[in-house]
Amino acid sequence: MSFDDMLTERIHEAEDILKSCLPEEKGFQKTVLEAMNYSVLAGGKRLRPVLMKETYVLFGGNGSVVEPFMAALEMIHNYSLVHDDLPAMDNDEYRRGRKTTWVVYGDGMAVLAGDALLNYAFETAAKAFDLVLTESGFDKNPENAADAVVLYRAVTKAMQILAQKAGIYGMVGGQCADITGEELAPEEVTEELLLYIHKNKTAALIESAMMIGAVLAGASDEEVKQVEKIAENIGIAFQIQDDILDVTSSLEVLGKATGSDEKNHKVTYVTLNGLEKSKEDVRRLSEEALQGLSRFGRRNLFLEELVKQLITREK
Amino acid sequence: MSFDDMLTERIHEAEDILKSCLPEEKGFQKTVLEAMNYSVLAGGKRLRPVLMKETYVLFGGNGSVVEPFMAALEMIHNYSLVHDDLPAMDNDEYRRGRKTTWVVYGDGMAVLAGDALLNYAFETAAKAFDLVLTESGFDKNPENAADAVVLYRAVTKAMQILAQKAGIYGMVGGQCADITGEELAPEEVTEELLLYIHKNKTAALIESAMMIGAVLAGASDEEVKQVEKIAENIGIAFQIQDDILDVTSSLEVLGKATGSDEKNHKVTYVTLNGLEKSKEDVRRLSEEALQGLSRFGRRNLFLEELVKQLITREK
Repeated sequence: MSFDDMLTERIHEAEDILKSCLPEEKGFQKTVLEAMNYSVLAGGKRLRPVLMKETYVLFGGNGSVVEPFMAALEMIHNYSLVHDDLPAMDNDEYRRGRKTTWVVYGDGMAVLAGDALLNYAFETAAKAFDLVLTESGFDKNPENAADAVVLYRAVTKAMQILAQKAGIYGMVGGQCADITGEELAPEEVTEELLLYIHKNKTAALIESAMMIGAVLAGASDEEVKQVEKIAENIGIAFQIQDDILDVTSSLEVLGKATGSDEKNHKVTYVTLNGLEKSKEDVRRLSEEALQGLSRFGRRNLFLEELVKQLITREK
Repeated sequence: MSFDDMLTERIHEAEDILKSCLPEEKGFQKTVLEAMNYSVLAGGKRLRPVLMKETYVLFGGNGSVVEPFMAALEMIHNYSLVHDDLPAMDNDEYRRGRKTTWVVYGDGMAVLAGDALLNYAFETAAKAFDLVLTESGFDKNPENAADAVVLYRAVTKAMQILAQKAGIYGMVGGQCADITGEELAPEEVTEELLLYIHKNKTAALIESAMMIGAVLAGASDEEVKQVEKIAENIGIAFQIQDDILDVTSSLEVLGKATGSDEKNHKVTYVTLNGLEKSKEDVRRLSEEALQGLSRFGRRNLFLEELVKQLITREK
């Protein structure tokens, strides 16, 4: 099977898990349920759940406890897009070729749909705690209590990572710094601030995906720390590549307007460091990430290829 | 000690727990942290955490595992106020005599601060899972694994209640129905819709508070179900009393303008059922709630008095 076929299969798997978790559109609260599903089912690469699952596999995981977290993380990613698009934030009317949630449902309902998705992400993830009893064998034999405790501790860590990386010490922190940064004069935007934004706004959910996969498969604290660093490199390289493509690519290749950063006088990694150094940094960060991924004893060659393609993509 | 002194003490305790969980205002994401704290520290009766703690005590709870949930529920209550006040929602500029969050920080930052609070609520609640190991004695003696599993199951249920009652099958569901209801012609607003809104928009977080307190103290499933019904009665009676006061009270007593429902042509329980039947229903619901509370073998007279005052309040 080619890499592309494998990727398509993995994306479908993630999509099916996500769909099985989404609410049925009925009841007095039907409109917010429709708005949630409209936002989540707008397509997208399902990158985060796929990364989570593949890291879980890398560390030998083979249960279903990862599935609620795959769905939850994708819901968190999508709530952040719904709120980002609001008139009060980026005021975007289109995303992935479709009208954004607030355009279709009104901005009050879009605020609520984002809230609903974020809350529902934790409601979904919390179901993983129920799976502990079956996956540890405790439900059939109470003598497996010690195994249950081991798995409870892993699910607890996964839940804490999910919350932390999405919140004020993760994605929300990055979004805040991004808003604050836009109000600064260009010369006030430092590389430190920019890296903080990239690490938190972009990399944090990639870190969340890969760390949760590792933790649930029973990776050691030291291994989880290494996974965090690898995912950070991937996330930052991904964002720098985005900035590079905004300069070097064309509308035809990218499918969206280029040069938007320059037009908006936006300070990016490329405007701060130049094109050559930026390309060099992407190379270095990917190299580090790929080396890190190949050093765990077990390997997941599909995951390594996926990371390579993500970072060196031309669109 | 008088009831009022006891209440003040309980409110201070809840306030201290909440404050100990709030983030320090520093870093590149400082603005969103300030906005969160501004919103949460605006005062308020801390009713939900107090109800949670007192129900925990009613069922014999005496640990600290309830504390992260007390703080988390109050954060959820406050995020919902921040988002409700937004121009895209109710467009309110003042709350409890202070400027609302969006007026002070801008509406983009207020969206983000609400998101931050909701996310941080789950981040805070997830810390309760760490307390299982100490409270069950597992950290000192691995033979306590079975006790740890019992407590893990209780914390899991508490987490699921927290998420469910705040989400699409709870508060967010009620908010959605409220928005939808406002777009209906008055004659289309049925008592069924109105009760759905009250049950979910108002009662769900009261149910959450009392059910979590009961679950964490080890109440049985049957007892938790009774607590849910009691809390629902309290929540609905509380809301009907609100509607009654909007008709019968005055600016001097209430501290806010009365007659606002009539002015806004808002269909309320009172406009649907008349003042006398509404008063009668408040009496009946409180009676049922208080009888229910006195039937658990153990009693908590402070909690019973608190419920009585909440429902029969004149302001």
